Amino acid sequence: MDIKKYVLDKALEAKEGARQIAKASSKQKNEALLGMAEALQKRAKELISENKKDIQYAEGKGLSKALIDRLRLTDKRINEMAQGLIEVSALPDPAGEIIKMWKRPNGMTVGRMRVPIGLIGIIYESRPNVTADAASLCLKAGNAVILRGGSEAIHSNKAIVKVLRDVIKKNGLHQGAVTFIDMPDREAIMEMLRLEGIVDLIIPRGGEALIRAVTENSRIPVLKHYKGICHIFIDRDADLKMAEEICFNAKVQRPGTCNAMETMLVDKKIAKAFLPSMIQRFKKAGVALKGCPLTRKIDSSLEAVQEEDFYKEYLDLILNTKIVEDIDDAMAHIAKYGSAHSDAIVTNDYAKAMRFLKEVDSSAVFVNASTRLNDGFQFGLGAEIGISTDKIHARGPMGIEELTCTKFIVLGNGQLRE
Amino acid sequence: MDIKKYVLDKALEAKEGARQIAKASSKQKNEALLGMAEALQKRAKELISENKKDIQYAEGKGLSKALIDRLRLTDKRINEMAQGLIEVSALPDPAGEIIKMWKRPNGMTVGRMRVPIGLIGIIYESRPNVTADAASLCLKAGNAVILRGGSEAIHSNKAIVKVLRDVIKKNGLHQGAVTFIDMPDREAIMEMLRLEGIVDLIIPRGGEALIRAVTENSRIPVLKHYKGICHIFIDRDADLKMAEEICFNAKVQRPGTCNAMETMLVDKKIAKAFLPSMIQRFKKAGVALKGCPLTRKIDSSLEAVQEEDFYKEYLDLILNTKIVEDIDDAMAHIAKYGSAHSDAIVTNDYAKAMRFLKEVDSSAVFVNASTRLNDGFQFGLGAEIGISTDKIHARGPMGIEELTCTKFIVLGNGQLRE
Repeated sequence: MDIKKYVLDKALEAKEGARQIAKASSKQKNEALLGMAEALQKRAKELISENKKDIQYAEGKGLSKALIDRLRLTDKRINEMAQGLIEVSALPDPAGEIIKMWKRPNGMTVGRMRVPIGLIGIIYESRPNVTADAASLCLKAGNAVILRGGSEAIHSNKAIVKVLRDVIKKNGLHQGAVTFIDMPDREAIMEMLRLEGIVDLIIPRGGEALIRAVTENSRIPVLKHYKGICHIFIDRDADLKMAEEICFNAKVQRPGTCNAMETMLVDKKIAKAFLPSMIQRFKKAGVALKGCPLTRKIDSSLEAVQEEDFYKEYLDLILNTKIVEDIDDAMAHIAKYGSAHSDAIVTNDYAKAMRFLKEVDSSAVFVNASTRLNDGFQFGLGAEIGISTDKIHARGPMGIEELTCTKFIVLGNGQLRE
Repeated sequence: MDIKKYVLDKALEAKEGARQIAKASSKQKNEALLGMAEALQKRAKELISENKKDIQYAEGKGLSKALIDRLRLTDKRINEMAQGLIEVSALPDPAGEIIKMWKRPNGMTVGRMRVPIGLIGIIYESRPNVTADAASLCLKAGNAVILRGGSEAIHSNKAIVKVLRDVIKKNGLHQGAVTFIDMPDREAIMEMLRLEGIVDLIIPRGGEALIRAVTENSRIPVLKHYKGICHIFIDRDADLKMAEEICFNAKVQRPGTCNAMETMLVDKKIAKAFLPSMIQRFKKAGVALKGCPLTRKIDSSLEAVQEEDFYKEYLDLILNTKIVEDIDDAMAHIAKYGSAHSDAIVTNDYAKAMRFLKEVDSSAVFVNASTRLNDGFQFGLGAEIGISTDKIHARGPMGIEELTCTKFIVLGNGQLRE
């Protein structure tokens, strides 16, 4: 099969879908989303039976239990997927919203109107729920989506997409609005990345290797998430009890996430008061602690932290502890070793809180709150298509507004360029 | 000389400049801008003498008069450059602005703060005024800039950059804030495009070939401007006198610009009433008209328009004329042949005006105004770093706000992730 032609044909169908879905009313889009939720639940058996093929293949290949669990569809998970679609249908429609209008001296009124981006390519690894999630968010904002999921979930993904497309058709919309690249070859991804002028945006979701490969090969703009090396600085003016709760939450509540803490920076003035009980609590929770020389003077049982540890995203119950001189020392550490993802200060000092907010250049900066809160739902965006560590278009959690752009609109009565 | 090392060293200096300039206060940045304006005027002789070298080289190479004119620095042009810097200093500082704050059910306040993007690479062709323009806009928004101008203007650009950097140093800021790649080799551009993680954004300014080369080779996000194939649709319910003025302005006022009209679409119901006097006026102004078969029935002296003409950006006194069935036919033509740049409708019908605004997917959509008004100054953005035909981050004229991104800020009092 000619991969190039296959991908191009799919993309051209999707592009036509994009033109049509951009014109759909909020009512049409919401009815389709609710119809999809209903159909996913009604056709759960079909989905689970297709999913079994993926599970069998994965077991045969000897994939890890954790990966197989992520792959598995159950009635409960299908209901959650459907619930997600219902929630997206209830969000306000960003497309067509006029976010600003102003008058010019020549009498014309200029404004900015939110419009769909167009055709969005999502390249993701093996969780099948991403298929329904991503499709629903793109569709709500008036975009078409071209999906390329991981090969391990191919049967599940195809079954989900079939359900979604059946509903789209039944609702009189263009099926190209949700298009799936049914091709396990890596070359199919490379072909997608060359569709400049057809695909408007690529969002890769998965491990760092996938994201680097996409970024290096794409001629299309990419919104991506590399890694989260997150810090909490406990200032000398912190409420130490609050600091302990925040640090514990940021490390232990779900250590496998991008916004969990990697390095705890402790002001030397309160290190002796703060660290002993904090360390005990972490140890009890099974956290492996690595300490700087000064930390190890307080607790010599800690393993010594190496400089390269400060660059690691652990995604596990491991934590670096470093005693710093002051806020400047802490911010210098964050600037050097951090990944500009999620960083927090715990302090009751107003001036230091404001400096940290302003000077730390991360996608989310927290005063007296856990870095784990860096999330679209927690921030009230209603939904999340991913977190961006880029500095262009979107930074931090991306909701449906981030799946739109704005165009200028001008209301005139004969204005000319002088 | 090792080009790779040269470019990397320059970029690392610029990156440090970015860190420092991001922390500068509005007052420090404005004082630097005013100082630069003064210094450019004071040192005009030095600039003009360096510019002479470029002019001599260009004349020797036999470049066109128009190109040599664009290259030339005069006292008047240097004063204009200085005036531009003064105007940028007077704009509000976007960095640090909090554009939105909201409260979450758990009591934390979440907001979005505008922050500088970081280090911006500008790759441009031979107009030396771009050097001061681009540097001032980047600096005002708290960004460092790494400039790579066309080889024809290399002496002029180096002289301008020297003046700017002298002022930066005198004002106690980091010179890396304005960095110039003093290397004519094309390979220097390719090295810039590989500096992912150091350079945050690339803005190419120049011809289509340059922009395509940058886009295809960059691993860094690119904001670009391809071409403007602009349309005006004269609806059956238009004020025909207003339509004539708008069309004339859009074609004739400055035909060499991206927002000048390429194709005039005329509703068949008013074609006979509108076209004869419009055509006469265009002919008098030296416009070469190409007509569709129906237009040529009205005026057989017109050359026949070919389908490929509808894809051309003329940048000249040439105009396609096509008679269409109605607004749907006009919008279908724009969707097929347009470049999503600047498109206008002339009508007094409210419903059609609203449909055109909503359905035409261009960076600026006009009702009853000339496409030539698609411009940062005309729209009141205060300044313009360029026009984007992208749909990511910025679309249409880009002012200094488009040289920032936002980060999330969270003000808490102990919030944890449940």
